[in-house]
Amino acid sequence: MTHLRHLPLGFGGEFDLIAAALRQWGRLASGVGDDCAVLEVPPGVRLVLSVDTAVEDVHFRRAWLTPQEVGYRATTAALSDIAAMAAEPVGVAIAMTLPDAWRADFLAICDGIGDAVRAVGAKIIGGDLTHGRELSLTLTVVGHATSPLSRGGAQPGNALWVTGRLGGPLRAIRTWEGGGVPSPESRARFARPVARFAEARWLAWHGATAGLDISDGLVSDAGHLAAAGGVQVIVNLDRLPLATGASADEAAQSGEEFELLVTGPASLDAAAFEKTFGIPLTCIGAVAPPVSGEPAVEALHHGARVQLPRGHDHFPSA
Amino acid sequence: MTHLRHLPLGFGGEFDLIAAALRQWGRLASGVGDDCAVLEVPPGVRLVLSVDTAVEDVHFRRAWLTPQEVGYRATTAALSDIAAMAAEPVGVAIAMTLPDAWRADFLAICDGIGDAVRAVGAKIIGGDLTHGRELSLTLTVVGHATSPLSRGGAQPGNALWVTGRLGGPLRAIRTWEGGGVPSPESRARFARPVARFAEARWLAWHGATAGLDISDGLVSDAGHLAAAGGVQVIVNLDRLPLATGASADEAAQSGEEFELLVTGPASLDAAAFEKTFGIPLTCIGAVAPPVSGEPAVEALHHGARVQLPRGHDHFPSA
Repeated sequence: MTHLRHLPLGFGGEFDLIAAALRQWGRLASGVGDDCAVLEVPPGVRLVLSVDTAVEDVHFRRAWLTPQEVGYRATTAALSDIAAMAAEPVGVAIAMTLPDAWRADFLAICDGIGDAVRAVGAKIIGGDLTHGRELSLTLTVVGHATSPLSRGGAQPGNALWVTGRLGGPLRAIRTWEGGGVPSPESRARFARPVARFAEARWLAWHGATAGLDISDGLVSDAGHLAAAGGVQVIVNLDRLPLATGASADEAAQSGEEFELLVTGPASLDAAAFEKTFGIPLTCIGAVAPPVSGEPAVEALHHGARVQLPRGHDHFPSA
Repeated sequence: MTHLRHLPLGFGGEFDLIAAALRQWGRLASGVGDDCAVLEVPPGVRLVLSVDTAVEDVHFRRAWLTPQEVGYRATTAALSDIAAMAAEPVGVAIAMTLPDAWRADFLAICDGIGDAVRAVGAKIIGGDLTHGRELSLTLTVVGHATSPLSRGGAQPGNALWVTGRLGGPLRAIRTWEGGGVPSPESRARFARPVARFAEARWLAWHGATAGLDISDGLVSDAGHLAAAGGVQVIVNLDRLPLATGASADEAAQSGEEFELLVTGPASLDAAAFEKTFGIPLTCIGAVAPPVSGEPAVEALHHGARVQLPRGHDHFPSA
C-alpha cells in the first residue's frame, strides 16, 4: 500500500501526488512521516475515535459537488461523529481510493479535506492512498473527551432538542435528482455541513443527558437514542425547525444533516445558545418511559400519532 | 452512512448484515455501540494509529483468496504497521465498501477480520459499512506504545536485520499471474501474513534503533529507513533469507511481506530470537554515513554494487 508517509526515496505517480498534498497542507500535516501516527494523550482524558466513508454515487454525485466540497464534506461528516460526543478534535487520518477519472482533482479534494480539518483546529496525522475504480474517502477522526456525551443517557422527563434547521440536504438531493438546481441554502446544507463541536460541548455543559449527530435522519436517529437509553422518544413533527423550502416530512427524514439531537433539561436557554452560535436550538419533543418495556419512537403531527417516515437511506439508486 | 453502531431500530439490508457480523464477533466487538469508540489510555503510554486500505484488483484478486483470507489479510496488513512500532495492539475499526457481488461473502470476510483481530489480542471498536462498486476494506488500528520504534533512528555502524524469509508473496503473485498454482508456502505468505508484534518488542528491547514492516519491498523500505535516518543503508542481496522457491531478486522486491526490517546492534542473538519465535532473524547489511550528505540505499551482489531492483508497485494491471 502506498502510505502518505512513503515520501522520501519514493517512486511513481502516487508518491508525487502525496508529496504535492503534503506541500499543500504544510503545517497542517506536519506530524506525518512514520509507520503510524503517535499521539500523546493527556492523563484524565479519554480518546474518542470514529471512522466514516464517503463513496461516489452512494453519498454524493460528481455533478453536485466541486472536488473541494467532496473532500470537505466527507471530512466534516467524520468529524461530526466525535463532535456529537462533546469531544475536542485532535487528528484526522485519510484513506483515499483514487480512480484515474479523479486524478486531476486530487489536490482540490485534499484542499477541501484540509479546510475541514483546519476549521475545527485538528491536524492531519496520516493516511493511505490507493488506486481503485471508484472514488472513496475513509476518514478516521480522533479526539479527546473528558466526559463523552453518549447515546445512552436519555431519561424519562427529558426534553428533546435539535440544533439548526433541518431538511436542507434532502431538499437539495430531491432537487438535483429531479433535474433542478437547489437553492443556495439547500445546496450549502448538503455541500458545506458543519461539525458542531462547540455546540455539543455547550449542550453537555448545560446538562444534556444523551446526544448524537443526525446522519440517518431525525426520526431514525431518535430511534437510536430510544434504543440506547431504553426509553420512548416522542418527536413533535409540528415543531421541527425547517430549512427554507423544506417540509416537515423532509426535515424528519433528511440524513447527513450533522445537526445535534440531544436529550436534556427542558429549561435549556435556547436564546443564549442562538446568541452564542448563530443557529437555533429547538425543543422538538420529549423522553418518556419505554412502551411495555420496549424502546420506541413516536412521531406526533397535529397532536396525533403518525406513521414514522422512513429514515435516510442514501439515494434510491445507491 | 451506515455505521456498525446503527443496530437497534435499524432497517434495511445493511443493518441486518451488521447485526449478523456483531453476533458472529461476539465479545470481540463488545465495545461497539456509540457515535465513536471511547478508549482509555493509561498515563505514560502513547497511542499509535495507522490506516490501511485493501482494494480488490489492486491488493488482491478474488480468484486468489477465500473471503476469510481477504478479511484476515487486510486486517493483518494494517496491524503490521503498529506492530513495527513495537506497540501493543488495542483496537481495530473497520470501514467496508461492499458491492453486491460480494454480499454473500460478507460474514466470511468478517470472520477473517475477526481471526486477525483475535490473533493479536485486540478488539473491534467500530466501523462503517457502505455500498459501492468494488470491495474495499480500510482498517484503522490503534495501539499503545511506551517507546515507539520509529523509522528515524538508524545510526552508522548499526547492522541491518530482517525477520522471517522473503520473496513468498511476490512468488505467489507471479505464479498466479502466469496461470499457475503457487506452492502452499508462497500462497500462505501472501494469504496469511503475520503481524510481528512480539518480535518487534523483542527487537526494541534488545537495542533496535529504527524499524518498519516490509510493505513496499525490502530495498524500497530500506530506502525509507535511509531517508528517515539521514544515513546510507547497505543491503547485501547474497544474505537475504529466501522463502522456498524465491530468488534473491524476488526477495528484494517482494512487497506486503510484513516482516520487520530493523537497524540495531550487530550483536543481536539471532539464535535466541529464532528459538523464541520460530522464524529466523538475519543480518543482511549495515548502516553507513550518508553519501555526500544524502541518504542512500546501496545493494551489493557478490560484493559488487548493483542497480536497485524496483520496489513493489502492486501488480501491473493495477
